Amino acid sequence: MAFEYLSNAALEEAREGFLNELVVRGMRPASEYVPVGDALGRVTAEPLYAAISAPHYHACAMDGIAVAASSTFGATATTPVVLQPDDYIVVDTGDPLPEGCDAVVMIEDIVYAEGDTVDDLGTCPVTLYAAIAPWGNIRQIGEDICAGEMLLTSNVRIEPAAMGAMLAAGVQEVRVISRPCVGIIPTGDEVVAPSANPRPGDVMEFNSTIFSGMVREWGGEPVVYPIVPDKPELVEKALRTAVSECDIVLLNAGSSAGRDDYSSRCVAAVGDVLYHGIAIKPGKPAILGIADADVSGRTAAIIGVPGYPVSGIIVVEELVKPIIEQLIGCSAGQAEHMRATLARPCVSSLKYKEYVRVRLGMVGDKAVATPLSRGAGVVTSFVKADGIMEVPQNSEGFEAGDVVDVRLLRPRAEIERSLVVIGSHDPLIDEVAQLMHARWPEFSVASTHVGSMGAIVAAKRGENHCGGIHLLDESTGEYNVSYLTRNFPKGGVRQVECVYRQQGLMVAPGNPLGIESLSDLACEGRRYVNRQKGSGTRILADYLCKRDGIDSGAIYGYDHEEFTHTAVAALVEAGSADAGMGIYSAAKMYGLGFVPVCEEQYDLLIPDYAWETPMVRALLEVLESDAFAARMQELGGYRVDRPGNVRQHY
Amino acid sequence: MAFEYLSNAALEEAREGFLNELVVRGMRPASEYVPVGDALGRVTAEPLYAAISAPHYHACAMDGIAVAASSTFGATATTPVVLQPDDYIVVDTGDPLPEGCDAVVMIEDIVYAEGDTVDDLGTCPVTLYAAIAPWGNIRQIGEDICAGEMLLTSNVRIEPAAMGAMLAAGVQEVRVISRPCVGIIPTGDEVVAPSANPRPGDVMEFNSTIFSGMVREWGGEPVVYPIVPDKPELVEKALRTAVSECDIVLLNAGSSAGRDDYSSRCVAAVGDVLYHGIAIKPGKPAILGIADADVSGRTAAIIGVPGYPVSGIIVVEELVKPIIEQLIGCSAGQAEHMRATLARPCVSSLKYKEYVRVRLGMVGDKAVATPLSRGAGVVTSFVKADGIMEVPQNSEGFEAGDVVDVRLLRPRAEIERSLVVIGSHDPLIDEVAQLMHARWPEFSVASTHVGSMGAIVAAKRGENHCGGIHLLDESTGEYNVSYLTRNFPKGGVRQVECVYRQQGLMVAPGNPLGIESLSDLACEGRRYVNRQKGSGTRILADYLCKRDGIDSGAIYGYDHEEFTHTAVAALVEAGSADAGMGIYSAAKMYGLGFVPVCEEQYDLLIPDYAWETPMVRALLEVLESDAFAARMQELGGYRVDRPGNVRQHY
Repeated sequence: MAFEYLSNAALEEAREGFLNELVVRGMRPASEYVPVGDALGRVTAEPLYAAISAPHYHACAMDGIAVAASSTFGATATTPVVLQPDDYIVVDTGDPLPEGCDAVVMIEDIVYAEGDTVDDLGTCPVTLYAAIAPWGNIRQIGEDICAGEMLLTSNVRIEPAAMGAMLAAGVQEVRVISRPCVGIIPTGDEVVAPSANPRPGDVMEFNSTIFSGMVREWGGEPVVYPIVPDKPELVEKALRTAVSECDIVLLNAGSSAGRDDYSSRCVAAVGDVLYHGIAIKPGKPAILGIADADVSGRTAAIIGVPGYPVSGIIVVEELVKPIIEQLIGCSAGQAEHMRATLARPCVSSLKYKEYVRVRLGMVGDKAVATPLSRGAGVVTSFVKADGIMEVPQNSEGFEAGDVVDVRLLRPRAEIERSLVVIGSHDPLIDEVAQLMHARWPEFSVASTHVGSMGAIVAAKRGENHCGGIHLLDESTGEYNVSYLTRNFPKGGVRQVECVYRQQGLMVAPGNPLGIESLSDLACEGRRYVNRQKGSGTRILADYLCKRDGIDSGAIYGYDHEEFTHTAVAALVEAGSADAGMGIYSAAKMYGLGFVPVCEEQYDLLIPDYAWETPMVRALLEVLESDAFAARMQELGGYRVDRPGNVRQHY
Repeated sequence: MAFEYLSNAALEEAREGFLNELVVRGMRPASEYVPVGDALGRVTAEPLYAAISAPHYHACAMDGIAVAASSTFGATATTPVVLQPDDYIVVDTGDPLPEGCDAVVMIEDIVYAEGDTVDDLGTCPVTLYAAIAPWGNIRQIGEDICAGEMLLTSNVRIEPAAMGAMLAAGVQEVRVISRPCVGIIPTGDEVVAPSANPRPGDVMEFNSTIFSGMVREWGGEPVVYPIVPDKPELVEKALRTAVSECDIVLLNAGSSAGRDDYSSRCVAAVGDVLYHGIAIKPGKPAILGIADADVSGRTAAIIGVPGYPVSGIIVVEELVKPIIEQLIGCSAGQAEHMRATLARPCVSSLKYKEYVRVRLGMVGDKAVATPLSRGAGVVTSFVKADGIMEVPQNSEGFEAGDVVDVRLLRPRAEIERSLVVIGSHDPLIDEVAQLMHARWPEFSVASTHVGSMGAIVAAKRGENHCGGIHLLDESTGEYNVSYLTRNFPKGGVRQVECVYRQQGLMVAPGNPLGIESLSDLACEGRRYVNRQKGSGTRILADYLCKRDGIDSGAIYGYDHEEFTHTAVAALVEAGSADAGMGIYSAAKMYGLGFVPVCEEQYDLLIPDYAWETPMVRALLEVLESDAFAARMQELGGYRVDRPGNVRQHY
């Protein structure tokens, strides 16, 4: 079978071709014996038969006397049978059935002659007023398991009860499939081991930790090799070693074009490249190869995994998991799926099957999916994601409101109990999440930062349980009221007090440039970093410009938009901007200077449809707690008055 | 708070009271730091904040030239801007953004003067026909993670992607909740370590292996103590040791009445008995106690777990899992539920909440639940079970046809792809299961042995995909046809050829009693073991008695009914019966003598509604395979002609 160099092969076709070719070239699982006590979660390599029966002897199932059933035949209330001490044997539960007996009479059914008691049993005659059937009150040999019966087929995962059944059946060790060994080779001149103080330009190598965790969860055994510099001869050498030691080798190369080329050349040097380039996004540059058994002594799969973590996770999930499953011959865990309504449009290329991470929440009676960042470098998108939406190849994507299929990354029950927060960013949302989850582990918080206006839009569409809003009405100087009146003419929402917080200009520590207001930024050489349109903080900045007659176009960087207070603070701290508008707690977190501008009112918008949900009940309890007030004090720049108080019900 | 001795407390009440009291008395989880690479599956003990931003520097996102964006302002197709070598710096993807620059122009967008090429970049002037915005083509500091942001709340399980995010955020170790330590003390004079050759009366101790597996799956750390004989002072001593070393101690005592008493006295000696006797079945004799912190140095939960494995599993699931969950502050895994139609009635006591193991199968479009053995000693009922049906306290049980809620023990997808075999027993069913699952891991087989007539009943009710039948029509000498014609007057089933098999009398090796026929058993001193009414083998035995004029009442043990060929063989092998009717392969498995009676036709009954299911397609493929024929030859006593051939479509 000859494979051509195929760029942009469809995933399904490439995967099937690759899996088949691995079998054709002799990839087989190894197996090993393990003691039953160590077999939890392992997969049987052969059908497992009972060595002995369980019970392995006829066991008395009651305390009483063992008899020959025939000696009791005919016994009735009017024609009792009397047994002499030689005719019965006293037994306890679990005792082996004595020779010559085939039934047990319960101690409660025995009648004694005048003067005898249970203490005389064994030496006194006893009277029975009912016959007992053969095998009455006996746990027979094989009641649970018969010797020779198949306990488990091959290729099944061993559960705790099965371990008990094996031991009961006289099986002491079990032949299981060896864990597939997955070697991971990180490469790249700029790649360094993770550190707490990396230098600019250092790319920290954490992909191998992620991939190792995934492999372990699927029942494989990861082996991480040392980082290899960008030298083809060194990469080839590392590959040669790995394919001789592992079933599957992941070559985790950077994703620039030049590297792809040398990666595939290195794979070709130790075996065959079957596919280079798969029509998935992220994950396009993946390489699928097979090491020559001549080279490695065994048939090993080689997968060129792109360097960006999100691309890597998708490729490992879609291409490494199926090989592990093929080796162990059973599913490595199947994801649940859920139908959900898409909150925002999601445009996708016709050329690729695209994997989009989404947050999910049950709002009212519908599941809502909100797409997360699609950046291939954004590993937190996988931490925040509740599921993956697949946009098929040859599809242009989905419209907002489309009902889509989502593969779940968390249990459904967890998603159903998640508080969906969509609105203005404030670090206090994370603190609320912490206080809520620590007290009620069943609740979690899924927050998306889209600004105050985003909270209003989401509530109108029925897509959030709550959202932060701090919208200043320039004409009245009042927060939020006019925005809510205008946007919810028929009502249906509550404006709930949360905190008052200090807004101001975050500047370098000590404010070396002496920045006092936005007007100090509207001059040559000053650089500003702004928040996105629709955020309350942007509206505040726009208002200040207007009030003070500043041409915002004259402020360098006014179009440079970030989505969170912390992102703005991080840029000021890095010296990439001289100032940015934000809240005191963010400035404090980064040790920045802070020029106060105003104290603003940060409320929560809670739609009526969410008001009675247990998640919102829990939220309100957290807001009213002393722990919340204490935490706000620690963060700094907050004033709490009556958080949780309903200011107005529209 | 004072607790009385409460016998038969409702489970929910006892559990809640127990969990609360553990907190009141100071039970708290311990925590420890682990390297991020070892944190997979562990649970965070505190909220986790990013130490550094990711990216931790402004990274060039493209190969090209880094510039001050302002130097490109005004560049258009008609008014290009020319930059001199001093105005730009050549960069590769991932390079840190050079000082003084705030944008990257892609290499593709650079136009060279006559005579210059990309190789001159760095020393030649370049022309740009478009301006670039500040921060264009740069992965900014904090694009993924901002320093100080909360990455995870406390009490969440650490997944692979989160490990990557931690490392990216400069976090090298993480404080996790220590695995709750669960001590297991097996007790009993008759209890011995598992062995391949136990003596009669030995009760093999495998409960600790089952419980250890369960505890491990929930994130706890099991410690198994040596087996303690039935001496209260020794049990008390073992308890004292265990409560000083563990968070939770399981005292796994036998279930006879006397033992309950001393178990609770032992618990009382090291702490308080809160509940003794819970209204669940199995599991009634459970004891819930708390060790005095004075005694143990810590607040430890003590649970008296009944000795029978099924009772023990239920008690550990219902009472130990919630304590582990309370300690780790998050769910240890939530089971899925499914609604299913009950195949048989299930009577239950009003006094207890009862846990009934069931097999599940998707037949047509409905899920069917078949109750399994309710014996507390039948550990295989847990291996075979697909789910647990709870019959509430104060309910008398359910009728056949009732739709009930089942907690799943296997993934739903596995259940949906399970071939439901209900009918006559033959070990070949297990062999088919093996061949099918090894070839198509997605398919499994759930078989229930209820005899040939049971197969007909199940097919009529729409509850199986297939079932074995070997029903001899005495008048025609033909197998199955008349039974199917009579039972399916409107048709709707196929009679599919499977095997011909040898039926006969299984006797002791060498047939020392010279048994040649059933008539040799109808005399004093001979013991027979029979199959259950409705089984084809029983019908055969009844027919032979009738044909030969034997009074079956004269055969001792003719009422002694077993459900499988192997169970009958096991009893003959144990010397508990002199003969039993059964198939050659069972006799061969047990090394027994065999007196052939006839070759019978063992067909499969396949209802039309199941005919097109992928499971039945796979079954037919297995039947037609050489591997099946080879395996039948090995088992012995079978003849295969055209297995899979449709004999008749009714």
